[in-house]
Amino acid sequence: MILNKTLTRLQLQSKLKQKNLFNSSIKFKHLIISKAMVHNKVTIIGSGPAAHTAAIYLGRAEIPPTMYEGMMANGIAPGGQLTTTTEIENFPGFPNGLMGGELMDKMKEQSIKFGNNVITETISKVDLSSRPFKLWTEFNEDEEPITTDSLIISTGASAKRLHLPGEETYWQQGISACAVCDGAVPIFRNKPLAVIGGGDSACEEASFLTKYGSKVYLIVRKDYLRASTIMQRRVEKNDKIEILFNTVPLEAKGDGKFLNALLVNNVKENRQYDLPINGLFYAIGHKPATEIVKGQIDMDETGYIKTVPGTSLTSVPGVFAAGDVQDSRYRQAITSAGSGCMAALDAEKYLSELYE
Amino acid sequence: MILNKTLTRLQLQSKLKQKNLFNSSIKFKHLIISKAMVHNKVTIIGSGPAAHTAAIYLGRAEIPPTMYEGMMANGIAPGGQLTTTTEIENFPGFPNGLMGGELMDKMKEQSIKFGNNVITETISKVDLSSRPFKLWTEFNEDEEPITTDSLIISTGASAKRLHLPGEETYWQQGISACAVCDGAVPIFRNKPLAVIGGGDSACEEASFLTKYGSKVYLIVRKDYLRASTIMQRRVEKNDKIEILFNTVPLEAKGDGKFLNALLVNNVKENRQYDLPINGLFYAIGHKPATEIVKGQIDMDETGYIKTVPGTSLTSVPGVFAAGDVQDSRYRQAITSAGSGCMAALDAEKYLSELYE
Repeated sequence: MILNKTLTRLQLQSKLKQKNLFNSSIKFKHLIISKAMVHNKVTIIGSGPAAHTAAIYLGRAEIPPTMYEGMMANGIAPGGQLTTTTEIENFPGFPNGLMGGELMDKMKEQSIKFGNNVITETISKVDLSSRPFKLWTEFNEDEEPITTDSLIISTGASAKRLHLPGEETYWQQGISACAVCDGAVPIFRNKPLAVIGGGDSACEEASFLTKYGSKVYLIVRKDYLRASTIMQRRVEKNDKIEILFNTVPLEAKGDGKFLNALLVNNVKENRQYDLPINGLFYAIGHKPATEIVKGQIDMDETGYIKTVPGTSLTSVPGVFAAGDVQDSRYRQAITSAGSGCMAALDAEKYLSELYE
Repeated sequence: MILNKTLTRLQLQSKLKQKNLFNSSIKFKHLIISKAMVHNKVTIIGSGPAAHTAAIYLGRAEIPPTMYEGMMANGIAPGGQLTTTTEIENFPGFPNGLMGGELMDKMKEQSIKFGNNVITETISKVDLSSRPFKLWTEFNEDEEPITTDSLIISTGASAKRLHLPGEETYWQQGISACAVCDGAVPIFRNKPLAVIGGGDSACEEASFLTKYGSKVYLIVRKDYLRASTIMQRRVEKNDKIEILFNTVPLEAKGDGKFLNALLVNNVKENRQYDLPINGLFYAIGHKPATEIVKGQIDMDETGYIKTVPGTSLTSVPGVFAAGDVQDSRYRQAITSAGSGCMAALDAEKYLSELYE
């Protein structure tokens, strides 16, 4: 039985009531079992700019999707990484900037307006081995699955963090995981900054931050950089960058409002000291949220979903990937939104072929 | 002599005055010649979502670009194709929609805020054969060129139109060149519509429009479709689509406000009649604005600039392409903006290597 639209539990309950099939003694669990009835033409997993842009385009194409936005999926609230930031200055169309959460609220309002059916549950299991594809939510993995003709994966990625003491207090109050996004904000101008990491990204971010900061410390755990030679050379010859080898960060310190120091340990000399900095940038990599499709779809060695470049097509026809989950290079809200649009148009094309 | 920033003519004039080099008898023409002094790190040609998003990112990265937005370049006002549309419902972040021109005004305000130096002149000649690259504006092709270390080409594309009598009157009042953009607007709901064209795009747009219209005429000049077999079959078996072969549109008619008919001629029977329609969609192709770099950079057979898929890199290192000028597949404001961000980040990386 193929329904045009996913039913939420409440809608299902009301439908069953209309048909006199609803017995009030039926417990919540039984209603969940009834999800077996639920089939979607297109399901979106995710809740960031890629997910909502895809939903806007699908809704306007009269294929309103069902979106599982997650319940703190991967530790991030619905709306994705933007909800962990403060002001966004670089999303085009907002000359006065806006808060990350505010931008995501707007996108969500817009996708719902075009019929997006948003469900605040986390998809925890996926079976792409046969069609329709099967999905399970986190507390119902033993129940009948939701089925879907096509799937857009836009589960995002998250910057790796060290979870130092003090980190939560000063997150986005001096601590960030994205130099391109946050480097230009006033609190970092002409202030000493630090980047944690020893790879290419860390070196790139350190170089980038010298545009803003008075000085940039590159904090490296080992006694060498694992970055490419060219990137090593670039940071070495930049007068504003000081590389601190054999150095491990221990605690983020501040005045209660903003970060103003990092307690570090030089492991070679076993010497602890406060490094006075007003900005701390993690550059120790990102983790794409692809555990649920591991082994079922082509990924690169770091777990990013492989797409046919310049499209959202994955190795499984009918499954599309958009946003940071397939982009380790640009990772911006606007590039993510653009790729969500691509996924919607690609899915629309796939479905029109499927249903002909 | 490498300057940090492009000088506008007025700035140049004031600089010359400061140095007592300015002779008030020097005519405007001589100041134009003085453009030889002008060197940019990065120059953007274009004025649409790709161009301004690139400028926002470059500005925030402390490499504010110089943007030649054009003076009715390719017949389109600064702001690009969006200025020829009415309401935009699918740009994420605007749940209540906004006018195309309004969105571009916001983007321009935002890029200027971050230092974008906008010049309302049309670049008409480019020399990519040596570095720095050379650029000339349309009335000064015999003068000394502007030079630039890197170049972002985001000159866009334009939908081909037939320029029928009545077309200007009803443009965006029933006539459109983008079914995905405009199909969902209320004036087309449950109304008879027509698509002009016989290729894959025309068939796709006709199928897409059956979601909204009561009926869709596919108007084909020849007595066959040149679309692929699969697309032909799809339109043939769609009850809502009627193919009118051997049919040439002659005039767009309406009530002065909205389109309500298309005068057509069946060239086989030499029979002219009014086809009652409320929507007319051109699907006869797009023309990318790439004349100025023809023969200097790799393009596909229809003139779109080839990029390394998933990036903005072209066949010429230091030249980046973004937006519709390199995208014949998606062509949306949001995908274009995303690719503008990519071009900025790619250019920033290129320049940081160039200047080390």
